[in-house]
Amino acid sequence: MQENNRKRRILLIVSYDGTNYHGWQLQPNAVTIEEKLNEAIFVLTGEKNQVIGASRTDAGVHALGNAAVFDTHSRIPAEKFSYALNRILPEDIVIQSSKEVKRSFHPRHCASRKTYEYTILNRTFPLPEYRNYAILFYGILDLEQMNKAAEYLVGEHDFASFCSVGAQVQTTVRTIYAAGFEKQGECLKFRITGNGFLYNMVRIIVGTLLEVGKGRLRPEDLEKILMAKSRDAAGPTAPAKGLKLLEILFEEETEEACGQQADSAVEK
Amino acid sequence: MQENNRKRRILLIVSYDGTNYHGWQLQPNAVTIEEKLNEAIFVLTGEKNQVIGASRTDAGVHALGNAAVFDTHSRIPAEKFSYALNRILPEDIVIQSSKEVKRSFHPRHCASRKTYEYTILNRTFPLPEYRNYAILFYGILDLEQMNKAAEYLVGEHDFASFCSVGAQVQTTVRTIYAAGFEKQGECLKFRITGNGFLYNMVRIIVGTLLEVGKGRLRPEDLEKILMAKSRDAAGPTAPAKGLKLLEILFEEETEEACGQQADSAVEK
Repeated sequence: MQENNRKRRILLIVSYDGTNYHGWQLQPNAVTIEEKLNEAIFVLTGEKNQVIGASRTDAGVHALGNAAVFDTHSRIPAEKFSYALNRILPEDIVIQSSKEVKRSFHPRHCASRKTYEYTILNRTFPLPEYRNYAILFYGILDLEQMNKAAEYLVGEHDFASFCSVGAQVQTTVRTIYAAGFEKQGECLKFRITGNGFLYNMVRIIVGTLLEVGKGRLRPEDLEKILMAKSRDAAGPTAPAKGLKLLEILFEEETEEACGQQADSAVEK
Repeated sequence: MQENNRKRRILLIVSYDGTNYHGWQLQPNAVTIEEKLNEAIFVLTGEKNQVIGASRTDAGVHALGNAAVFDTHSRIPAEKFSYALNRILPEDIVIQSSKEVKRSFHPRHCASRKTYEYTILNRTFPLPEYRNYAILFYGILDLEQMNKAAEYLVGEHDFASFCSVGAQVQTTVRTIYAAGFEKQGECLKFRITGNGFLYNMVRIIVGTLLEVGKGRLRPEDLEKILMAKSRDAAGPTAPAKGLKLLEILFEEETEEACGQQADSAVEK
């Protein structure tokens, strides 16, 4: 019984349809994902909690696997939080898994690889079921040129040109591991994996690569845009609704610093 | 100018997300697809119109290619109605194409092949973006047995067992050309093509095939269920939201009786 008051840190993998929310982060007069999670945890545990999210997505952006942690005295087995919270949460927010992690694990400070996907529906008329999950582009896009351009982004670069003005960050240097488009039926899916993303970075990248696809920019212009380190050099910011956070892999999660506690089974 | 008052029949291919509608057919106190189409045609042409739909889908059922016709004195070129109506219609109803057809063409009386699709998400937790377009099934489904069972439905049969009680039809005999499941990632997609479908027929078929997938019915039981000619013999009615009308091919559309008029270009 000595474990009764031990506080555990629970990691949630969270999927959501961002259409009806003003983004992840708490706001005074708007409904957000974070608020809904805090409310559900309170209903379940009776504890006033404040989840810490890995990625504070914008209004209209979706997620298959965002991550969040919270600390609790509750004795509910860690892996059961997913089932219990899903019974409380609205239909457009679903916990995909839950587990205990070290108290030192912080989803924004621990190193991670994030993968985003952006969907472009390439046909004449929209499809009703895609209206909140893709942008429509009617016309020809040169996929090969877009993928050539995307290659310029891979590696460690200063992405200042791909960051919305006003964002406060210590450094605008990020590493991109992979970036490219793939045709899936009538959709073009852009996937990008990196160690972090600046404010609106994926959406500005997509907006710029679309300029390449339309023939208004050449693939090699991406080099100049990166060099310029100015938001004005890049293309427009693509709309939020086409963007989805697919997955976050925490590199240290399995290691000592942020790893799952070996004694988590004791709680059951 | 002698053509000014000639009334043309326009065929619309209509896609919609059925989530926010009480089905296709006009109702006194509920919003329907048919109502929205009539309204949009009135805004565009000033004519009080009453579209005739090919398939009067239920509340929550979706369509990629339902069909509807209306008659008009408007001189808008037939193929431009799609663009013009899409500017007026809400985002969840989209006209995919429009063209002129013979005045004798009636989307319910002309022979046609309809294809429906039903989506089952087969995983532990729901995915927020599928919440209105698929049913969730957590557990193992025997796809091979389900497809064996579906084969019993192919051909001309009396489908009285697969028709909701209370439906008034002259005959419950229909011909099914193809029926089967296919795995697509975490989804099971059931597609069925036939010359017509009774009230709730596809949903009762899916509900029955799911019983086979769970091992509660054997494929050969389908034969007995058909023979019983009683709704009680079949499985439950699967929920509306998993169902989508994919396509209607009008067999006579290109023929004399229901064909596109050769003089439609004269109107431009």
